[in-house]
Amino acid sequence: MIHTMIKIQPKNKQVGESVKAYVDTLTKPIGSLGRLEEIAVELAEMTGETFPVVTPPGVIVFAADHGVVKEGVSAFPQEVTKQMVLNFIHGGAAINVFSRQIGAHFEIVDVGVAEDINAEGLVNRKVRYGTANFCETDAMTRKEAEQAIAVGYEQAEKMIEKGIKCLILGEMGIGNTTTSSAILAVLNGGNIDGLVGRGTGITDEKLKHKQRVIEKALLERKPNHQDPIDILAKVGGLEISAMAGAMLAAASKRIPILVDGFICTTAALIAKQICNTASDYMFVGHRSLEPGHETAIRLLGKSPILDLGLRLGEGTGAAVAFPILQSATLMTKEMATFSSANISKELK
Amino acid sequence: MIHTMIKIQPKNKQVGESVKAYVDTLTKPIGSLGRLEEIAVELAEMTGETFPVVTPPGVIVFAADHGVVKEGVSAFPQEVTKQMVLNFIHGGAAINVFSRQIGAHFEIVDVGVAEDINAEGLVNRKVRYGTANFCETDAMTRKEAEQAIAVGYEQAEKMIEKGIKCLILGEMGIGNTTTSSAILAVLNGGNIDGLVGRGTGITDEKLKHKQRVIEKALLERKPNHQDPIDILAKVGGLEISAMAGAMLAAASKRIPILVDGFICTTAALIAKQICNTASDYMFVGHRSLEPGHETAIRLLGKSPILDLGLRLGEGTGAAVAFPILQSATLMTKEMATFSSANISKELK
Repeated sequence: MIHTMIKIQPKNKQVGESVKAYVDTLTKPIGSLGRLEEIAVELAEMTGETFPVVTPPGVIVFAADHGVVKEGVSAFPQEVTKQMVLNFIHGGAAINVFSRQIGAHFEIVDVGVAEDINAEGLVNRKVRYGTANFCETDAMTRKEAEQAIAVGYEQAEKMIEKGIKCLILGEMGIGNTTTSSAILAVLNGGNIDGLVGRGTGITDEKLKHKQRVIEKALLERKPNHQDPIDILAKVGGLEISAMAGAMLAAASKRIPILVDGFICTTAALIAKQICNTASDYMFVGHRSLEPGHETAIRLLGKSPILDLGLRLGEGTGAAVAFPILQSATLMTKEMATFSSANISKELK
Repeated sequence: MIHTMIKIQPKNKQVGESVKAYVDTLTKPIGSLGRLEEIAVELAEMTGETFPVVTPPGVIVFAADHGVVKEGVSAFPQEVTKQMVLNFIHGGAAINVFSRQIGAHFEIVDVGVAEDINAEGLVNRKVRYGTANFCETDAMTRKEAEQAIAVGYEQAEKMIEKGIKCLILGEMGIGNTTTSSAILAVLNGGNIDGLVGRGTGITDEKLKHKQRVIEKALLERKPNHQDPIDILAKVGGLEISAMAGAMLAAASKRIPILVDGFICTTAALIAKQICNTASDYMFVGHRSLEPGHETAIRLLGKSPILDLGLRLGEGTGAAVAFPILQSATLMTKEMATFSSANISKELK
């Protein structure tokens, strides 16, 4: 049982307070760098360091398929998961572009694509060939959910050993907004209004169908909202489980996590349910257009850094937000203080 | 008369349309990169290029003093302008830090600081020793306003000759939110409610005083809202004039401009009034906490990229936003297309 083994220290509030006091001595009106100042303090609390470093970042994209696509819930066919994995390997996807921009270590992990993929550069950690259709049966077994979490945990650990200082998680899996909406509905309780969106871009008619599919699955599977492994096993996804596991690894090593959009934030909620202090190490990179993201962010207790109308996933919104974290660290590290620069203080 | 000489081509809508069509062939659901897609199209329209480049950017900070500080409108004494200029030269200000982060060419120009500054690395283009107190007399002559615009124009031209591909303007001048609020009140018409803020951080009492000072100055100076040079001469600032001039130079050379916060956006409005198509080449980097910024953005017809509660000026919000422009250009340039990556299209 992975979640009984994980130990995540709470944030170091003491270092945070000393950094806050130091930031107030820098050559700018107090508070005038707004969110950057808050981020600098939070990064200090996470890492326990006054001058934390977030470079190089690491990006891990987990890919897996979803049996529920048989219900016709996505705008794209299932084969696109495998095709996009090859695109990630060849460096042509959006997350490849933004990973290169921010100088990230990049890795693509097959944790459950429905087909075999033999390609150099792919990390093969397949737990099973896609989930089962959760309208008909449980998506996977508890053991498989825990295996997928362990895959994420181990891959993140390996990347942290390589020296990354901030972790970004991405996902690829046709159908995974349906899975995420189902998970979120369990965690949020009540009905699914406002939690189901258009994913890659479905029609009004298909959107209504997608809602009905999720409602039916929740009624039949009855996931236990207090048991994250039960939720994952009954209506979850292998890549979502792996992302949650990766976040737990990062948090346990005091590595800041930059959470992406809807699917990634759902995985973050699972990680938080497994270990409540995990969310102490999380920033939400951006506000997704996917309507359920608002609820997911609220449950996670975070405020997104960017709001650019993105809804691609893959970790793209987090990667695009990364330079903001870097700006915050450089502010603390490189700015002069009023006294070092001989600048007059405010008039009284 | 500088404004009769400036020719700024409108955006190239044809290139924009072809880039929009191309972006729709990239391996992502159509529209899923939101604002980044819009920025990619706008950059193409500005530069006339399908694959525009925004690196390296250039940052020019113009410094000048404001006679109106004698009225007690700022939280900091006037000497801070000169002290901060030295801080810029030594690389310890926030804009230095963020300029280094984005690999920008950086320049600090004295266009009207009240004291002499002899320091290596400073570009001395002083038009006069600060403006006059516009509560008592015009801030400067029309000729001086035009000289300051010309300084900005020439410094931007020089930086463009060095090869910069995107221009960021910053300012330093104790008292310059008072000046900007006065300019904005003239441009916006009506009363000054909501256009005057706390600048570097004044008290409630001082804020009321600042509002009365501006109201009195506008009544006595009566700037002609249809004549940007008259506005600058009567209630303007030398650094604001220079920033407007720099923007006109960039726009006339089809170099995208990343506008910063309240003071910079006010300068952008002056540039637009001098030549209406200037704003075709502008992005607003962020939404400032300074309350008048909302009105300034609306008058400029722009939507800011970031919203991080910044209110420092110096060009910092624009510099922090710069990587987003870069992400947009890299998206177009480096992503695979559905056909090049052999990816199945949407189901019909």
